[in-house]
Amino acid sequence: MKKSDDVISKKAGLPPGALVHVGKRKTEHVKITVIDYDRDHFEQRELASVEECKPYSESASVSWINVDGLHDIPTIEAIGNQFSLHPLLLEDVLNTRHRPKTEEFEEYMFVVLKMLGVSEDRATVVSEQVSFVLGPKFLISFQEEEGDIFDDFRKRLSSGQAQARGLGSDYLLYRLIDTVVDNYFVVVEHISDDVLQLEEVVLDNPDQHVLQGIQLAKKKLIQARKSIGPLREAISILEKDGGKLIAKKTTRHLRDVYEHVIQVNENIENQRDMVSTLMDLYMSGMSNKMNQVMKVLTIISTIFIPMTFIAGIYGMNFENMPELHWQNGYFYSLAAMLVILIGMLFYFKHKDWL
Amino acid sequence: MKKSDDVISKKAGLPPGALVHVGKRKTEHVKITVIDYDRDHFEQRELASVEECKPYSESASVSWINVDGLHDIPTIEAIGNQFSLHPLLLEDVLNTRHRPKTEEFEEYMFVVLKMLGVSEDRATVVSEQVSFVLGPKFLISFQEEEGDIFDDFRKRLSSGQAQARGLGSDYLLYRLIDTVVDNYFVVVEHISDDVLQLEEVVLDNPDQHVLQGIQLAKKKLIQARKSIGPLREAISILEKDGGKLIAKKTTRHLRDVYEHVIQVNENIENQRDMVSTLMDLYMSGMSNKMNQVMKVLTIISTIFIPMTFIAGIYGMNFENMPELHWQNGYFYSLAAMLVILIGMLFYFKHKDWL
Amino acid sequence: MKKSDDVISKKAGLPPGALVHVGKRKTEHVKITVIDYDRDHFEQRELASVEECKPYSESASVSWINVDGLHDIPTIEAIGNQFSLHPLLLEDVLNTRHRPKTEEFEEYMFVVLKMLGVSEDRATVVSEQVSFVLGPKFLISFQEEEGDIFDDFRKRLSSGQAQARGLGSDYLLYRLIDTVVDNYFVVVEHISDDVLQLEEVVLDNPDQHVLQGIQLAKKKLIQARKSIGPLREAISILEKDGGKLIAKKTTRHLRDVYEHVIQVNENIENQRDMVSTLMDLYMSGMSNKMNQVMKVLTIISTIFIPMTFIAGIYGMNFENMPELHWQNGYFYSLAAMLVILIGMLFYFKHKDWL
Amino acid sequence: MKKSDDVISKKAGLPPGALVHVGKRKTEHVKITVIDYDRDHFEQRELASVEECKPYSESASVSWINVDGLHDIPTIEAIGNQFSLHPLLLEDVLNTRHRPKTEEFEEYMFVVLKMLGVSEDRATVVSEQVSFVLGPKFLISFQEEEGDIFDDFRKRLSSGQAQARGLGSDYLLYRLIDTVVDNYFVVVEHISDDVLQLEEVVLDNPDQHVLQGIQLAKKKLIQARKSIGPLREAISILEKDGGKLIAKKTTRHLRDVYEHVIQVNENIENQRDMVSTLMDLYMSGMSNKMNQVMKVLTIISTIFIPMTFIAGIYGMNFENMPELHWQNGYFYSLAAMLVILIGMLFYFKHKDWL
Amino acid sequence: MKKSDDVISKKAGLPPGALVHVGKRKTEHVKITVIDYDRDHFEQRELASVEECKPYSESASVSWINVDGLHDIPTIEAIGNQFSLHPLLLEDVLNTRHRPKTEEFEEYMFVVLKMLGVSEDRATVVSEQVSFVLGPKFLISFQEEEGDIFDDFRKRLSSGQAQARGLGSDYLLYRLIDTVVDNYFVVVEHISDDVLQLEEVVLDNPDQHVLQGIQLAKKKLIQARKSIGPLREAISILEKDGGKLIAKKTTRHLRDVYEHVIQVNENIENQRDMVSTLMDLYMSGMSNKMNQVMKVLTIISTIFIPMTFIAGIYGMNFENMPELHWQNGYFYSLAAMLVILIGMLFYFKHKDWL
Repeated sequence: MKKSDDVISKKAGLPPGALVHVGKRKTEHVKITVIDYDRDHFEQRELASVEECKPYSESASVSWINVDGLHDIPTIEAIGNQFSLHPLLLEDVLNTRHRPKTEEFEEYMFVVLKMLGVSEDRATVVSEQVSFVLGPKFLISFQEEEGDIFDDFRKRLSSGQAQARGLGSDYLLYRLIDTVVDNYFVVVEHISDDVLQLEEVVLDNPDQHVLQGIQLAKKKLIQARKSIGPLREAISILEKDGGKLIAKKTTRHLRDVYEHVIQVNENIENQRDMVSTLMDLYMSGMSNKMNQVMKVLTIISTIFIPMTFIAGIYGMNFENMPELHWQNGYFYSLAAMLVILIGMLFYFKHKDWL
Repeated sequence: MKKSDDVISKKAGLPPGALVHVGKRKTEHVKITVIDYDRDHFEQRELASVEECKPYSESASVSWINVDGLHDIPTIEAIGNQFSLHPLLLEDVLNTRHRPKTEEFEEYMFVVLKMLGVSEDRATVVSEQVSFVLGPKFLISFQEEEGDIFDDFRKRLSSGQAQARGLGSDYLLYRLIDTVVDNYFVVVEHISDDVLQLEEVVLDNPDQHVLQGIQLAKKKLIQARKSIGPLREAISILEKDGGKLIAKKTTRHLRDVYEHVIQVNENIENQRDMVSTLMDLYMSGMSNKMNQVMKVLTIISTIFIPMTFIAGIYGMNFENMPELHWQNGYFYSLAAMLVILIGMLFYFKHKDWL
Repeated sequence: MKKSDDVISKKAGLPPGALVHVGKRKTEHVKITVIDYDRDHFEQRELASVEECKPYSESASVSWINVDGLHDIPTIEAIGNQFSLHPLLLEDVLNTRHRPKTEEFEEYMFVVLKMLGVSEDRATVVSEQVSFVLGPKFLISFQEEEGDIFDDFRKRLSSGQAQARGLGSDYLLYRLIDTVVDNYFVVVEHISDDVLQLEEVVLDNPDQHVLQGIQLAKKKLIQARKSIGPLREAISILEKDGGKLIAKKTTRHLRDVYEHVIQVNENIENQRDMVSTLMDLYMSGMSNKMNQVMKVLTIISTIFIPMTFIAGIYGMNFENMPELHWQNGYFYSLAAMLVILIGMLFYFKHKDWL
Repeated sequence: MKKSDDVISKKAGLPPGALVHVGKRKTEHVKITVIDYDRDHFEQRELASVEECKPYSESASVSWINVDGLHDIPTIEAIGNQFSLHPLLLEDVLNTRHRPKTEEFEEYMFVVLKMLGVSEDRATVVSEQVSFVLGPKFLISFQEEEGDIFDDFRKRLSSGQAQARGLGSDYLLYRLIDTVVDNYFVVVEHISDDVLQLEEVVLDNPDQHVLQGIQLAKKKLIQARKSIGPLREAISILEKDGGKLIAKKTTRHLRDVYEHVIQVNENIENQRDMVSTLMDLYMSGMSNKMNQVMKVLTIISTIFIPMTFIAGIYGMNFENMPELHWQNGYFYSLAAMLVILIGMLFYFKHKDWL
Repeated sequence: MKKSDDVISKKAGLPPGALVHVGKRKTEHVKITVIDYDRDHFEQRELASVEECKPYSESASVSWINVDGLHDIPTIEAIGNQFSLHPLLLEDVLNTRHRPKTEEFEEYMFVVLKMLGVSEDRATVVSEQVSFVLGPKFLISFQEEEGDIFDDFRKRLSSGQAQARGLGSDYLLYRLIDTVVDNYFVVVEHISDDVLQLEEVVLDNPDQHVLQGIQLAKKKLIQARKSIGPLREAISILEKDGGKLIAKKTTRHLRDVYEHVIQVNENIENQRDMVSTLMDLYMSGMSNKMNQVMKVLTIISTIFIPMTFIAGIYGMNFENMPELHWQNGYFYSLAAMLVILIGMLFYFKHKDWL
């Protein structure tokens, strides 16, 4: 987190319109692919240069231009020129720390959102920024690296099964957003599994290790909330201000996605509740353990200290100690100790300490 | 919870309109029953096929078509076709993890809500999703399994006592929602009984066991809130946007249900307050217990350690120890110990430790 | 609380309009009294039957019909018929667990609120539901039992002093609500007295007993908030939607009551702040006490354990222990112990433990 | 606090318009002074009777009528008659527990606010209620006792320096409110000084004494918030609904005051954050101290207990104990003890306890 | 903080329009510089007197008049006269404790905001107030001391690279605000670095030192939030009510800044979450440590106390103690002790204490 945060401050002091890539370089080459389709035909190609986009975007069929890799600024600028995109929009595409949002421009809509995943060591939520530019007959998507969560959808498109084949670029946008949002459930379920496991451990045998687990879960939830929270408003804007770019029919679908985002957010809040509960459970588990330790110490000490005291008395070297000369003095003293032992045990039994 | 959560992610990556049953298969067969009534006649039948619904729904009398069991997707699809329901609506019917909502379609209203119950071991709140499609002269209800909370109402309907006999499908919808909401009070009272019992135990004799009880109560409240919370908005939409489907008179009844939902939500919030209070009480009960343990240890130790020290002194083997040769040395030493004992007891009395 | 909660679930499964009395039967007989007055005349009578109400309510003078006791359903129904009250309204009158609200009907306004008191053992806040039906020339009030907080006002009315004599039923309603709200201040002051007392005890000498006091105060505040909180909205509706039933002049008075309700609510919130502070104080008081106990134990132990060790050494029975044969060996050893004692005392002094 | 709260319940059961003085009698005599000024003349007089006000209020110059002392109800009533003030307004003037508010009447505006100060023992925030009635050419102010925070302004007025001389009664009102609000900063700074001092003590050496300081600071902040919080809305109403009584130019000045009130409220919230932080710091300071105590006990015990055990072994009186007869047995045993001592010290060093 | 807070109360009791410098005098001389530019020319000069401003502000080119140092009130007043600024505006410029805001005047817009930095000892967030007066062709900026965060922008301006050269004073204002806001990210990242470091320490080895670090981080976040929080509304007002002074094109840029402010605020809130989590971690780390200490004490005590007791028994001096005369009595007793030792070790192993 530290490193990535440092990166965002790279922009401090730069003029707007100065294109800077904020984020890690996640891919070697920038790869531009175009998928052009309508009900009857389907074409998928990797483009060698930005200029090849143009004819696709002007055709009557729907063109989905996908850009993987954001570090090559001249390429991004070339795309901006081709489609006359606003410089601030390009800046936001390149700034991979941007919060999700929808912005309306005269000729197109601009949507930024986050694809979430869980890192391999299950320790962090990783997010990849995806931006969409929706035009009347085209959709440009920018990803930080070659993704795979859209692959299933690509296959359906090419096989001609997908409903999308007969519909516009707005429906394509909806399908991609829907795919991203469906994936949020997977991530949140992953976290909630962790939380359930932590809960079992906390109730069973809390230790310092669990504490780190709780802290990790808390961080993952903060990361997820940060990425998903603002999407609610973004989709609501898309739904309401979609204007001429988004068909009425697609609006109902967006409403559906909107509900899913609300539901994911509720799940995150519930998990946060759970996690803060875990912290309480951990604390009380700790003080329970301490109580156990203290009881053992107390039981042993309060039994043996008085008995040792008796032994101490008859270990004194006074000349005149009558008991020492009794025939059964020793055994009487042992008996006294036994009485103390049994008395104490009864006392602890009574106190429910045993 | 883990298992069920896994299920919702089954949908990730699937296209909209792909019907998937999300949830446990709770019943063997899908059972379709129709109740057709007006002021003068009443008919209740189990249908063999979906096609038989049609004539009922077109008659002038009110038809209540109830579907128990959601796992058989072709049947659900067939119903969808019969009544030309939107594919997204069917998707929501099948996704039993959906949050409560009301959605307006051109020809009908769609309502999703949760029936709540308490599991037999009193450990979780179980919820069953119920969806309603309200048309001008019919009401379709989808349940996960054959329910019984509507049985009383069915009997009243058949006996002709119910006011509903003279009224439309909107009133029928209101009555069913009302039944579900009334049942929420039972569930929340159940939880609040548990909380009261926990409170007694916590104030009396807190132990690790209680902690799990508190955690359970917290979870049950989160589950209940999750199911009931969004209903507030859903009923409000029904009341306000009911349009031509919902008679003015029924609107007032819905207002009444709306108030009940608010009241249940308030009860849940109050119980949550109570539960978080219990956690505090538990923690302070624990530290009270620890205090008791420490006091016992301290009293015993501080009494016997000094006395044992005196015994230790006169157990030393120095040649020249005048006290050892005194006639009453032994008794003097015992007296000294007694003084320490009494002094300490006074001290603890003074400190209110005894 | 448990018993009363059980009662509300009696309604689950019943049809709307089925009149059920929810609550305790607090009075033997249902008593109906009417007070009929205008500027010039005043009449107060207890009625034998519901039918006698009618003439009063139709006269030009203001009629205040008061019903004490709600368990006799036929009587309530008869009143409903006389004044053609909506069945849902009667249901709300009988359900004494209803939250405060104002509802507008075509011919009358309906107001539900709670009269609060403190139980004799000062352990709970007791609430009695009062409902009002305001018509153009009459006011019907329903109470669970014969109240007395309205008695002062009745006397003023009969003596002719009260301003109300020259004004309408809306002003009468305002005066009764005002009386109830003024009484809230008494209840909240009562609780705040308890909180102040608890605070003194907590700062002075916290014990397990105080904990129950804090818990009680918390519960009383939750009960009060539950009863008073929703009144804010109810009075606001009365003020704004009073329509033709409430004179402009009375509206200003209602505004005044509204402000009082806000003020009571603020007081309750402040008391809740205070109480949660008390819990913190209690916890830190406990850990302070524990600290004291631990210090005593530590001081005694760390002083005597080393001294006892020295005694132990010279209690060993080795043949060759030169110190034992020194003339002043014994006194040297005592001196060593004294040095330890003084050293330890200085150390504790330095650590501020003494 | 207890006593004053009791006082407010004096009003319970009284009719509206019944004038009762709620609050402490803070001054001996009611004193009425009038300041009458315009750009060219200035007159300041103490009035013998209420009737003398009239001519001033009707003159074209601005008249500021100030009433010190509220316990003399006939005087207040007389003023009410002179200026035909609404009875509810007079009631609010006399009820010194009223929350700040602005109320619009047909001929005048009514403003209630609180002057805050700190009691001499720095233990409480004391508040004095000030009410203003703003008419077209006059301003009446009611204070509980002769104040002095307005004295500076009076001097400026009389010397002719003040801008106010050329402006209307609305500007006068603004100046007085501004004076009161500026004074809030002093009070909050006073509290924040206390909080800073407490913080130092808590981080340095927390004790039970600090706890009371934290509790006091918390209470003072609650008192301040209670008095200042509602003023925000009151001034906003004054600014927006000032209508014909408040000149456009004064509105901008009120906007300025409004911002100050927001800033004071923010300061109070920040201080509350700080104070709740202090409680946490105190608790962790306490558990730190306990840790220290426990460490001392543990170090001493774990060093000496094993050594004492060795001494105990060779203090046994078995006939056949070969070590006792060794020439250097005693010195070997001392060496063993030394090894234990050094070993333990290393262990504690390693554990970072020393 | 104490000192600076004291300063703001200097204003209490003063009339509005009385110009007082609230804040520290951070610079020796007041320095006025003007930068005058359009697409073709660029001029930068330090002015000797306020009067020299006038011609610049009236020219068709954009004039940026920058004032460093606020303590010299006559100079500020002279500027006020030159540009006929409202007295309240000048007051706000001089009061360096003002919260960020935008205020609309007839001829100009007034913006107050805070430049943030971190003090050299990393212990506090220092803030410097910057105010802007935006006129049709000029921008006046007031700073407390000669800043340097605008230097980069000045260089770009002079070199002719900057887009700003062809645009109006509104764009200049946007660029300066943008520079300030970009710098907030640097400050918040700085704090979040501290928090990350604290987290590592807390999880690793919490001590009293960390507590002060947490407290410091908390304070820095409160300071940052106080300075940045209100800016959100201020920029929103600028964007919406910019009227004729702010070109449509600049509005979109302001929208961009607005989003950045929201993002910084979210970061601050997330950091606050993190910090309050750290406090919990610290507390549980402490109780973990205590647990460790207690375990060591308990293990040592419970092993040696019983063994010492056995030694004590055979140290008694009774005449008749048969075991003392057994040939192997000594060795048997040692064996008994060994059994206790091993038994205890197994017990602690079983309890997972070792």
